[in-house]
Amino acid sequence: MADETATTGLLGFKPQLVVPGMNAEAAVQFYKAAFGAKEVRRVAHPKRKAEQELPLILSAELKIGSSFLLVSDRFDDAGEDGSAVSRGGGILLRLEAEDVDAAMKKAVTAGAEIVGQVTEDEDGVHGKVRDPFGVVWAIAAVGKKCPEAEA
Amino acid sequence: MADETATTGLLGFKPQLVVPGMNAEAAVQFYKAAFGAKEVRRVAHPKRKAEQELPLILSAELKIGSSFLLVSDRFDDAGEDGSAVSRGGGILLRLEAEDVDAAMKKAVTAGAEIVGQVTEDEDGVHGKVRDPFGVVWAIAAVGKKCPEAEA
Repeated sequence: MADETATTGLLGFKPQLVVPGMNAEAAVQFYKAAFGAKEVRRVAHPKRKAEQELPLILSAELKIGSSFLLVSDRFDDAGEDGSAVSRGGGILLRLEAEDVDAAMKKAVTAGAEIVGQVTEDEDGVHGKVRDPFGVVWAIAAVGKKCPEAEA
Repeated sequence: MADETATTGLLGFKPQLVVPGMNAEAAVQFYKAAFGAKEVRRVAHPKRKAEQELPLILSAELKIGSSFLLVSDRFDDAGEDGSAVSRGGGILLRLEAEDVDAAMKKAVTAGAEIVGQVTEDEDGVHGKVRDPFGVVWAIAAVGKKCPEAEA
């Protein structure tokens, strides 16, 4: 009650750019050229990597100054909330939570709409809400590490 | 050449949500309720404050976990890039640069398009580009302080 932040255990968020047309790699190169971005981590989509010639980028983490930007290829299986992502110019905010279910519930109680139920996949435990101002928040479990991505 | 980041002197960026319909205050209240956001700074629009009953929010800075989100009312005089902001679901990325002109030039050379020429107003020195992936970046001078907003 006294400390709402403690209640939901939200650690912080990073903007995530979802790029259509297999252009995440081009976006990464652009941010390096335009803003001197450093790539600190990259995770390829494990399934698509095996099935397709071109590995899709699940998440490339860029550092620009002291800030982080995530860049991802858009997958077809993100379809249920695809329109929201497109409408949002491709940017969503990826929020790390200690308890994803609790954070989702609190957001919905405050007026957000669920656009992606809580699931667990190669990206960890995560759900997605759209807030009343059109911003899509991916709420993801804290501490999901991708060992193959640690350089 | 060896260190592109040093060349442009980019310190980092914060996502900025531009809210139409005078609803920035409602957005601030939502983020407090939904994510336990703390308001760490607020700057009202100095001109509008005098002219209108309801002071427009030039920038409210919220802290969610360890991250910062800027929330602003959308002004009519942001019209030249208004369509981009709308299309972007209201989110742009506000990048702090030591040299705004140099940072704008570098971004344009890399493929970005200028959607707001460099100007100096109550918000400091700033310009705006849209990158090839639809993201609008407000590039602003570092260290512009708003003394009245320091609590």
